[in-house]
Amino acid sequence: MKYHIFFNLVLLIVLTGQVSAQKDTEVPIPTEAQLQWQNAELVAVFHYDLHVFDGKTYNQKKNRITPIHDYNIFNPKKLDTDQWVKAIKDAGFKMAIFTVSHETGFFFHQSKATPYAMKALDWQDGKGDILRDFKASCEKYGILPGVYIGTRWNAFYGIHDFKVHGTTEFAQNRQKHYNSMIENVVTEVFSNYGDWAMVWFDGGAHGPEQGGPDVLSVFEKYQPNSLFYHNLQRADMRWGGSESGTVPYPCWGTFTFNNSGADEPTKEAILANNFALLKTGDPDGKYFVHAMSDAPLRGYGSHEWFWEPEDEEHIFPVENLMNMYYNSVGHNTSLILGLTPNANGLMPEADVKRLKEFGDEIKRRFSSPIATTSGNGKTIHVKLPKTQNINQVVLMEAISKGERVRKFVLEGKTKMGWQTIFKGSSIGHKFIHTFDAIEASAIRLNIVESKGESQILNFSVYHINVK
Amino acid sequence: MKYHIFFNLVLLIVLTGQVSAQKDTEVPIPTEAQLQWQNAELVAVFHYDLHVFDGKTYNQKKNRITPIHDYNIFNPKKLDTDQWVKAIKDAGFKMAIFTVSHETGFFFHQSKATPYAMKALDWQDGKGDILRDFKASCEKYGILPGVYIGTRWNAFYGIHDFKVHGTTEFAQNRQKHYNSMIENVVTEVFSNYGDWAMVWFDGGAHGPEQGGPDVLSVFEKYQPNSLFYHNLQRADMRWGGSESGTVPYPCWGTFTFNNSGADEPTKEAILANNFALLKTGDPDGKYFVHAMSDAPLRGYGSHEWFWEPEDEEHIFPVENLMNMYYNSVGHNTSLILGLTPNANGLMPEADVKRLKEFGDEIKRRFSSPIATTSGNGKTIHVKLPKTQNINQVVLMEAISKGERVRKFVLEGKTKMGWQTIFKGSSIGHKFIHTFDAIEASAIRLNIVESKGESQILNFSVYHINVK
Repeated sequence: MKYHIFFNLVLLIVLTGQVSAQKDTEVPIPTEAQLQWQNAELVAVFHYDLHVFDGKTYNQKKNRITPIHDYNIFNPKKLDTDQWVKAIKDAGFKMAIFTVSHETGFFFHQSKATPYAMKALDWQDGKGDILRDFKASCEKYGILPGVYIGTRWNAFYGIHDFKVHGTTEFAQNRQKHYNSMIENVVTEVFSNYGDWAMVWFDGGAHGPEQGGPDVLSVFEKYQPNSLFYHNLQRADMRWGGSESGTVPYPCWGTFTFNNSGADEPTKEAILANNFALLKTGDPDGKYFVHAMSDAPLRGYGSHEWFWEPEDEEHIFPVENLMNMYYNSVGHNTSLILGLTPNANGLMPEADVKRLKEFGDEIKRRFSSPIATTSGNGKTIHVKLPKTQNINQVVLMEAISKGERVRKFVLEGKTKMGWQTIFKGSSIGHKFIHTFDAIEASAIRLNIVESKGESQILNFSVYHINVK
Repeated sequence: MKYHIFFNLVLLIVLTGQVSAQKDTEVPIPTEAQLQWQNAELVAVFHYDLHVFDGKTYNQKKNRITPIHDYNIFNPKKLDTDQWVKAIKDAGFKMAIFTVSHETGFFFHQSKATPYAMKALDWQDGKGDILRDFKASCEKYGILPGVYIGTRWNAFYGIHDFKVHGTTEFAQNRQKHYNSMIENVVTEVFSNYGDWAMVWFDGGAHGPEQGGPDVLSVFEKYQPNSLFYHNLQRADMRWGGSESGTVPYPCWGTFTFNNSGADEPTKEAILANNFALLKTGDPDGKYFVHAMSDAPLRGYGSHEWFWEPEDEEHIFPVENLMNMYYNSVGHNTSLILGLTPNANGLMPEADVKRLKEFGDEIKRRFSSPIATTSGNGKTIHVKLPKTQNINQVVLMEAISKGERVRKFVLEGKTKMGWQTIFKGSSIGHKFIHTFDAIEASAIRLNIVESKGESQILNFSVYHINVK
């Protein structure tokens, strides 16, 4: 999951099909798939790869350039994707992504395109197909399924940052072979398993113009209604600029670029100020390319996308996860939480327990609003049942109509009259604000500036107990 | 099979265990395995690889650096190794070798060490094992089994002349992985299939001292009584210097070199005069390292180790094969004939027919001597049943006692007294001489010079009809 920093390369060109400005509001609107993604809010990405079984500490930099000695170390005796998916379902997640391949280059599906896949294993007599199992579990639990396909590093094939080393005919032939293999594998993944809610090519898939495989046309042929993340031609979302599970506020779902050349952001522009452009987006951007917030669950004082024994201490406490939630879902992005089954093939008990605690805490804080409403226009007024303490507000725009709100003010009616609670800019899919409790009898949202009439889907007020 | 030219590299060091000079004769003697090999005389090497199925003309130089696009092109619907082995049995062959891997890098056995092997195939639902089938067929027909393992070129793994390209840590890791894979594969081949009469590492396996895998110690552990061909530490035979299926006369089974440094032949010495040293050997050599004569059956106006459609015109006529026989078996080497099953998995009818014709012609020419004897000492005299035309002689030394004869004269007793038929030097396992017919009542072999007492196992006289 690291090294998203070249995301910028991805933004140079975007399909004109993704440019969807409406005349009445002049703001881009999301596709159905983008809308579905934003509505998911909580997304799990299950990382699994051969090195989980090697008994060594995962070292991404080393692992990605070191082929696994013996692929038959992969032997998860209790593998149960139902248990994985139930764990996130119980925590309120709505989408899950599985790494059909990561950086070892091993593919966890039944393939005829590469021998370095499930058929090679002793495990389940070579008949296993974790991608199939994962997809079935998603369907069983009503979780939207996504698939992550690593093409940038492949220790087995000797692919280093998308490339075979060297420029000889020998190297060129290997590159062609690799590209062709990837195209065939991607065809299998996109055509043999039904619909995917999203596909994730980490690091930005190199396309043919960069000497890489043409995965986009395969995607567009077989998964026309899905989300593509991402290459130089297309990116239906953007990385949020860190692996902290958070984005700063504001984080616009729109982005500044087009394919006219002069407007292309440079690599430098993307890298500037620690990816500020990715984090913030652009309220005037012509493209709907929302950000995501990603982090591994085992990232507390560490940063573990993959399971390691005796690593439970690095599972984020609920307090930290809630902080992520406020700063991801509450900042107009989905939270992508990295989960990793253990060498038995199960989500570890400690992780499952923490996920449940996280989901329960979200429920506790958001399931009982004092008042809730919706509406269009300049001002939305909410009278509370009684004068009482409030300390949390949730706002949601109907982003199917675009992110229209540009400036707003939240005010609470106290004994001393209307007091400003928060002056904001972006709402987008969801904006959550917590604040020191005030005693109020009413609360109102004033839309100071918007592109077209604001359409507020949800305006909820809470008083929550926070430790 | 090409590019044996670096055979010289192999000769620098030889196990002292192979140095077997006897005190009484001071000539090296062969091991049991070497003796068995020389007795075999006719050896088939079955070449099979994925590109037989690609519908394109085989181009070794290109194929070895171009991975096969789709390994599932391998689909020999009628594969029958019994048919292969019966074809050579019927032609009088005594040994057969199978290319468990050649230069695509695909392995034709059930492997847990590499996924690029039979398990990956749709063919036989991934359960096939041609090495197993081949070995069983050899046992069924009483043919000595050998195995050829390609380690020098591996288009799939990206191995070019034994090496991964480059010197980066990335490349070093790949080389280590490849070496380890080869060691594991070789362990499978040597330990899962019983005894092999010989193993053939083409081009000379790079050992650890050259950055390659340690295949020799695996060989010595699992196949202690077999023949090893070949690497820098050990070569139980030598290439005969061409792929013409012939060696010049004389061709000594002994060779000049040891591991003392000063006596090592240089690469230049081996290459000199078109491999003259390999072809001739050295009567005073301290090592028993006999030569072999190899050629593809489809080498008539071409040189095809692998099956191609519409290629029957390149099958050698019987006359040419007989010429090879005289200049290989008749020159103290075994003849290694390259055979190649077709895309149906069968030896093509035309090839089978030609082999049978070849075997029949050998029988016709050698099964009915006018007289035959054996004996030790200076002179061996054969009185013919009557005065008659003779035009062929076969001589064989008991090479289990070493190649002792250094100079000999063959004479026929004619009306004008004893006439010289041939003045020779090497006899070795077998020397065949044909000559313009003379009318004789007796024939004698005078050993002019030998190391120790000569031991003639067979001295046969023929009159054959040659077209």
